[in-house]
Amino acid sequence: MPRLRIGLAQVNATVGDLAGNSDKVIEWTMRAAEQGAGVVVFPEMMLTGYPVEDLALRRSFVDASIARLHALAAELAGEGLDGIAVVLGYLDRRTDQQPRVGVPAGAPLDAAAVLHGGRVAIASAKHHLPNYGVFDEYRYFVPGNTLPVFRLTTVSGDAVDIAVAICEDLWQDGGPVAVTRQAGASLLVVPNASPYERNKDDVRLALCRRRAREAGTVLAYANMVGGQDELVFDGDSIVVAPDGTVLARGPQFDEALVLADVDLAAADPLLPAGDQRATASDAVMTIERVELAPLPAPDPGMALGAPMIWPRLDDLAEIYGALVLGTRDYVRKNGFGSVILALSGGIDSALTATIAADALGPDRVHVVLMPSQYSSDHSVTDAEDLVKRQGVHARTVPIKPIFDAFTGSIDVHGLAAENLQARIRGMISMSLSNEEGHLVLATGNKSELATGYSTLYGDSAGGYAPIKDVPKTLVWDLARWRNEQATARGAGAPIPENSITKPPSAELAPGQLDTDSLPDYYLLDPLLDDYVEQDMGAAELVAAGYDPGLVERIIRMVDRAEYKRRQYPPGPKISIKNFGRDRRLPITSRWREPRVG
Amino acid sequence: MPRLRIGLAQVNATVGDLAGNSDKVIEWTMRAAEQGAGVVVFPEMMLTGYPVEDLALRRSFVDASIARLHALAAELAGEGLDGIAVVLGYLDRRTDQQPRVGVPAGAPLDAAAVLHGGRVAIASAKHHLPNYGVFDEYRYFVPGNTLPVFRLTTVSGDAVDIAVAICEDLWQDGGPVAVTRQAGASLLVVPNASPYERNKDDVRLALCRRRAREAGTVLAYANMVGGQDELVFDGDSIVVAPDGTVLARGPQFDEALVLADVDLAAADPLLPAGDQRATASDAVMTIERVELAPLPAPDPGMALGAPMIWPRLDDLAEIYGALVLGTRDYVRKNGFGSVILALSGGIDSALTATIAADALGPDRVHVVLMPSQYSSDHSVTDAEDLVKRQGVHARTVPIKPIFDAFTGSIDVHGLAAENLQARIRGMISMSLSNEEGHLVLATGNKSELATGYSTLYGDSAGGYAPIKDVPKTLVWDLARWRNEQATARGAGAPIPENSITKPPSAELAPGQLDTDSLPDYYLLDPLLDDYVEQDMGAAELVAAGYDPGLVERIIRMVDRAEYKRRQYPPGPKISIKNFGRDRRLPITSRWREPRVG
Repeated sequence: MPRLRIGLAQVNATVGDLAGNSDKVIEWTMRAAEQGAGVVVFPEMMLTGYPVEDLALRRSFVDASIARLHALAAELAGEGLDGIAVVLGYLDRRTDQQPRVGVPAGAPLDAAAVLHGGRVAIASAKHHLPNYGVFDEYRYFVPGNTLPVFRLTTVSGDAVDIAVAICEDLWQDGGPVAVTRQAGASLLVVPNASPYERNKDDVRLALCRRRAREAGTVLAYANMVGGQDELVFDGDSIVVAPDGTVLARGPQFDEALVLADVDLAAADPLLPAGDQRATASDAVMTIERVELAPLPAPDPGMALGAPMIWPRLDDLAEIYGALVLGTRDYVRKNGFGSVILALSGGIDSALTATIAADALGPDRVHVVLMPSQYSSDHSVTDAEDLVKRQGVHARTVPIKPIFDAFTGSIDVHGLAAENLQARIRGMISMSLSNEEGHLVLATGNKSELATGYSTLYGDSAGGYAPIKDVPKTLVWDLARWRNEQATARGAGAPIPENSITKPPSAELAPGQLDTDSLPDYYLLDPLLDDYVEQDMGAAELVAAGYDPGLVERIIRMVDRAEYKRRQYPPGPKISIKNFGRDRRLPITSRWREPRVG
Repeated sequence: MPRLRIGLAQVNATVGDLAGNSDKVIEWTMRAAEQGAGVVVFPEMMLTGYPVEDLALRRSFVDASIARLHALAAELAGEGLDGIAVVLGYLDRRTDQQPRVGVPAGAPLDAAAVLHGGRVAIASAKHHLPNYGVFDEYRYFVPGNTLPVFRLTTVSGDAVDIAVAICEDLWQDGGPVAVTRQAGASLLVVPNASPYERNKDDVRLALCRRRAREAGTVLAYANMVGGQDELVFDGDSIVVAPDGTVLARGPQFDEALVLADVDLAAADPLLPAGDQRATASDAVMTIERVELAPLPAPDPGMALGAPMIWPRLDDLAEIYGALVLGTRDYVRKNGFGSVILALSGGIDSALTATIAADALGPDRVHVVLMPSQYSSDHSVTDAEDLVKRQGVHARTVPIKPIFDAFTGSIDVHGLAAENLQARIRGMISMSLSNEEGHLVLATGNKSELATGYSTLYGDSAGGYAPIKDVPKTLVWDLARWRNEQATARGAGAPIPENSITKPPSAELAPGQLDTDSLPDYYLLDPLLDDYVEQDMGAAELVAAGYDPGLVERIIRMVDRAEYKRRQYPPGPKISIKNFGRDRRLPITSRWREPRVG
C-alpha cells in the first residue's frame, strides 16, 4: 500500500490578519515539507481567522480572502513548495446568483482549498452549517454540496485519492462524509475551527473514529489553536485509522506540526474521471475530482518511528490551559502590553492574577489593592502575600477619601453604598488603564454573574474577564490545583492558602459574607449548572431533588440579573454555556417558572 | 358575495407574561365581538411575546405556552366568545421526533392557532424562518410545511375559506402564500411581529399588496405594538384587497382594533375536504382544512361606513414615536417607576430627557446636573432652562470634590482625566439609581458610539439608551421637530434653542469641541451610515466620493471602538443596523480595509 506522510498544522490564526495568516501558512508548509509531508492540512478559515462573524458580509473582506488565497498559491510555488498539497480554510463566495432573503447574491461560503503546483487545484464549501450554541452560520453562509477529491502521487509513484470535508460536516450525518466511501477516497482530511469546551476532546475522538469507520478512510482532523474573543481553540488534532486506531494526536492549546505516516489504499484507476452524483441522507452531493500535477513531492525519508501522540491534559489542567491561552491571546491580538486588575485578597482576584501572570509573565501584570474601611486586615495581607510570591507590580490606593467625597455630595446607604465602593475600585482600575495603557481584567466568577451578585461597572469593569465562565467551586479547585502543580515541581505556591480557605466575602460592609446573600457554593453551583447550562425548569429541578424554595429564589435571582450580564466584558468559554453568544435571553421578560412543591 | 367583518387586534404583548397576554386576547376578542367581527387576528407569538430568544429552548416555557393556548380556547368559550374565530401566534413544538444537531427532539415552532368553539380548531407553524439582521430563527425553530385553511360560516350563512400564514412567510417567495390561491381561500390572515425600521411602513404596504395579488385573496396583516428590549413593534396593521386597495390601516405605535368589512368569494363546495398536497417553489406544502362549527357569530350590524385608515406619521414623527414607545415599554415592562439621567445642557441629554418626559410624564423623570471646572456657564443654564420648561425633577452635584479626591489618590492626565470625569458622572447616576430606584438612561448618540467618542462606564453607564441608534444630525432634526410640534400647538418648546444650536462639546477639558476629534457631523454621519449600515468597504467609499484619508481614519475609529459597543446598554432600533443584535463584529480583529487613493 502506498505510504503518505500527513502533516496537520495546528496553528493560531488571527481574525482579519490575512497577510499574517498567509505568511503562517508558508512558514508551516515549509516545515511540513522539510519533514517530508506530502500533504499538510491547516485549520478551517485559516486565512481569515475564525469566527469572522459579520465580516463575512463585507464584500471587501470576502474579495480580500479570495485574492489572498490565489496569491498564496503562487507564493508557495515561489518558495519551491508547489509539490506539497496544502489544504486550508478560507472565505469564498458563490459565483452563481442565488440570493436568499437577508443573504445577498454571491453569498459567502466557509470554504476549503487545495493548493498545489502554484494554483488552487480544487475548492469546496462546508455543507453542514452549525446554527446553535455560539454558532450563527446560517446568518452568513450558504451550504456547499460537493465532496472534492484530489488525486495525489506519492513519492513511491502511487496515486491516492484524498477527500476534503470541513468541521461541522463531521458532526452531522449525511453530506460529504456520507459519500466519501463511494468516492473511493482512502484519506479524508478535515480542517476545523472547533472551540474548546470541557471534555470535548473525548467527544471529538469518538466522532473522528465513527466517521473514519463510516467513510472507510484514514481521517485527519486539523484544529485551530488560540483565543478569539470568548472562544478558545484547543488544537487536539487527530489522525485516526478506519479501525479506530489513533495514529497521531496533537497537543492541547499549543501550536504543533502533527505528523503521521499512513498506509493508504491506492486510488482506483477505474473510477470515473469527471464529476459524479452521489446521494447522501440529506442531499444529493457532487463528487468533484482533480488530479494533481505530478510534481516532485517532499520525501518522508526515514519512517517516523513512534506515533506522534501528545499526552492528554487532565480536566483541571485542560481548563486552566484554556483560560491562560484565552487571556494571552486576547491581550496579544488586541495589542496590549500589560494588564491591570483589582487584587482584593480573595480567591477570584488571586486566581485571575495567577492566570494573567502565567499567560503574560508577572512583569506584565499590575495589581491594585484598594482597601476600604470594611476590608479585613487579612484581605490586605493576603493580597500583599500574593504580590510577593508572584512578583507582579503592585500599588495600594485606599478608597475611603474618594468614598467620602462621594458621600459628601450624595446620600447613599446600604446596597447603594456597597455598590459605590465597588464602582470606585472599577473606576480606579479604568483610570490607571487609561493613564498607563494596561488592559483591565475583571475578576468576577460565573456563580456571581449568574446570581447577579456583582456590581455593574464595579467588579464588572474591564476589557476581559478570565474567570467569567468558572463557577466558584471550580475557582477553588483550580487554585488548589495550581498550587499543587507548583509545589510538585519544587516551586512556591503562587496563591496564599488563606485566599483559598477563607469564607468568601465582598467586604463591602462590616463582617459581610457571601453566605449572607447566597447559599453555600457547593449547593448553589450544581443548581446553577442545571438551570443555566441544562435549561432545566423549576419542576425538573425539584424532581431532581433541589429544595423548591431554593429553586424559586435562585431562578429569580438568575433571571433578574440578565441586564448585568448583557453589559459584562468578554471572557473565555470553558463550559457548554458561557454567558456570551451561547446564551441569549431577553432582559425584558415576565416569565416565571411555575411554582412547584 | 359574503361579507365578513375582520378585526386586527394590534396589541402590546409582554415577553414571558403568558397570563397577561392571554387575558389581553380575551379582552380584545370581546371588543372585536362587540364590534361585530367574525374573525379577529392577533400578532405573531401573541401568547408568549416576541422575540423570546433562548426561552424557546426551555421545555417548561414551551409546555406553558401550549397549555395556556388550550386553556385560553376554553376561557374564550366560557366568556361566550366561542363563535368568533380567534387567530393568534404562540410557541409550540413538533410532536414527531426529528431532532437536528443543536435542536433537540420536539423542536420549537413559531406557531399560529385558530381558536373557535372552545377548542383549537387548527394550528400551523411558520415556514420561512428569518435568520439575518436581528433574527436568529434557525437557532430556535424548525419550519412548518402546511397551509391551514379554516372554513367559517358568516352571519349571512355563507361559507368562506380563510388561510393563515405568519410574518416572514410574506417576505420570502414560496411556502404557504404560494399555495393559497390553489387552496381556494378568499382571505389570508397573517399574524406578525415585525420590528420597526425607518421607512419600513412603505415596504410593508408594497409587500402586502404584492402577496394579496399573488394569492388572489384579501390579505389581513396584524402586527404587534410595543417595545421589547431593543426592538420596537410599530403596529401599522393593514387590510388590502387583491387589487391592492387598502381597506383598513392601523395607527403606528398605538394599540388599536382595526376593523374592515370585506366581501369575499364564497368557499368552493367542490374542494376536497381533506388534506391536499401543493407544490410551492421551495417546498411541497400540505393544505390542511377544517370546517368550523356553525356557532352563532357576532353580527356586524351596520356597515362601517368609511374605511378605518389611520393617518401615517411623517418621518421624524415616526422615529420619535419609536423612541418614546421603546423607552416607555422598557421602563414599564421592567417594573421601574422612574428614570434618571445626566443633564449636561447639550443636545443629546436634552433630547433624551424630552423623550423620557414624553414617555413617562415629567414627574417620573429625574435629571442630575453635574458641572465640573470645565463646564461652561451656558451648559448649566441651558440645563436649568430645560428643567424649568419641562418640570422634571432636578438636582445639581458638582463633581470637582470627587474628582479632586481621585486625583489626590492616583495620577491621571489628559484623556485619562477626561474619562474620569465622565465616569464620576456615571457613578453618581448609578448611585442615585441604587438609592432611589430609578432606571438610569444613557444619553449617547449613534455617531459617538460608532466612533468610540464616549467613555466606557462614563456616559455609557445606564440600563437603557434611548438615542443609541440616532446619529447626531438626526438628534438635531428630532430636537427641532419636537420644538416645532410644541409651538405649533401653542405649547412651549421643551428644548432650549441654545442646546440645539451651540457647537457640541463633551466639556471634559477647557474649550473642548467635538470638532477637535471628529469631522463635522454633517460630513461624518453619511460616511458612518455608508460604512456601518451599508457595509461599504474603503474602495467603495472612496469611489462614492469620500476623501480617502477621512475614510481610513473613520474606519479605524469605528473598528477600534467595537469593545465599547459590546458593553453598551440596550436602546431602541430605528435604523437597518442598530449597534445591537443587528451587527455582530469581532472585538479581536486585525482586518484593515485596503488603502485607497
